[in-house]
Amino acid sequence: MKLHGNPMSTATMRVAAALYEKELDFEFLTIDFNSGEHKKEPYLSLNPFGQLPAFEDGDLKLFESRAITKYIAHEYANKGTQLIETNDSKKMAIITLWLEVEAQQYEQPASKLLWELHFKQLFGIPTDPKVVEENEAKLSVVLGIYEKRLSESKYLGGDSFTLADLHHLPTLHFLMSTQVKKLVEPLPRVSAWVADITARPSWSKVTSMLN
Amino acid sequence: MKLHGNPMSTATMRVAAALYEKELDFEFLTIDFNSGEHKKEPYLSLNPFGQLPAFEDGDLKLFESRAITKYIAHEYANKGTQLIETNDSKKMAIITLWLEVEAQQYEQPASKLLWELHFKQLFGIPTDPKVVEENEAKLSVVLGIYEKRLSESKYLGGDSFTLADLHHLPTLHFLMSTQVKKLVEPLPRVSAWVADITARPSWSKVTSMLN
Repeated sequence: MKLHGNPMSTATMRVAAALYEKELDFEFLTIDFNSGEHKKEPYLSLNPFGQLPAFEDGDLKLFESRAITKYIAHEYANKGTQLIETNDSKKMAIITLWLEVEAQQYEQPASKLLWELHFKQLFGIPTDPKVVEENEAKLSVVLGIYEKRLSESKYLGGDSFTLADLHHLPTLHFLMSTQVKKLVEPLPRVSAWVADITARPSWSKVTSMLN
Repeated sequence: MKLHGNPMSTATMRVAAALYEKELDFEFLTIDFNSGEHKKEPYLSLNPFGQLPAFEDGDLKLFESRAITKYIAHEYANKGTQLIETNDSKKMAIITLWLEVEAQQYEQPASKLLWELHFKQLFGIPTDPKVVEENEAKLSVVLGIYEKRLSESKYLGGDSFTLADLHHLPTLHFLMSTQVKKLVEPLPRVSAWVADITARPSWSKVTSMLN
């Protein structure tokens, strides 16, 4: 298995987290952002959008981080951590529901805040306070709904850690070092969930790739 | 099965299309946007985000249109049109890839253009030309990649119609009556694909709900 990406890319980190949870061996091929390697061939043949990451498992070539993690979770269901539910369609429907909430409700404000509060500072670009305010408001609504959901089950998808939690890890990791932490702190169940999922050994392996 | 929604909501239309493809009987319960029914109990207990639609299949309660269609496609795999692949994990991975492209690449510019070019006009709100220009540029990139993909297979997910195509129907339907049509027309394969999928009998049943 080959993962083409960059440790600075949250989507690359998402796939790496799934691979580590499944205890799968993979080759990591670093794509150099600075030289624009992701916008040129041969990379564009792996991901026509020129975004990170891309993934190969034998002949199968995939892109879109959430498609890659879902493939890994299904194809290697019997290895490492069970990240989906294979036997109970109703339990799987609930995991899928929270996977979609991450993708449709959480991702957009989280990635906009990540850009404004983390990456813009790295690149020395001024933060736009209006964008921050709008997206903090949107993210607060999502986190409030997570607080209620986490009163019903330990994890978003049910009683065990699944892809529905894992998909949040890269953005949460960076956002917890920004003022977004103030949105999380008043929510005891969300705070405990963030502490729990970011403490997983698989996640330490991912963050050690950043060094 | 109960679908709580409104025929004017693209997410409601997405779920209705899946139910009709699977030839499933369902009760349609109209949620009245104008009175804010979706922002009050009892609806908020079905969808805490106060968005349409919500779905019930016996005891199972779901929201997020793409989670509902995936549940329907898996749970009723043997009824009506096969909307996913159940036997070949690599074929399913390719369908999942294009499902994620719809959700992560297509949905955002498409829904922004829908708001600017369709709903704002219905409500008598002025269109923002800058937002239109930005999102037409983004959508053009996606459609260009679809044009190449549709040279390799008849549908996005492979040789047969799947959820990866179906999820586009509601936004495509409305956008083809706007200036976005000009982005589609120069692309012969995308044009043929739009004509094909919007001509499905299931889709006629959905659009007849609008009357």
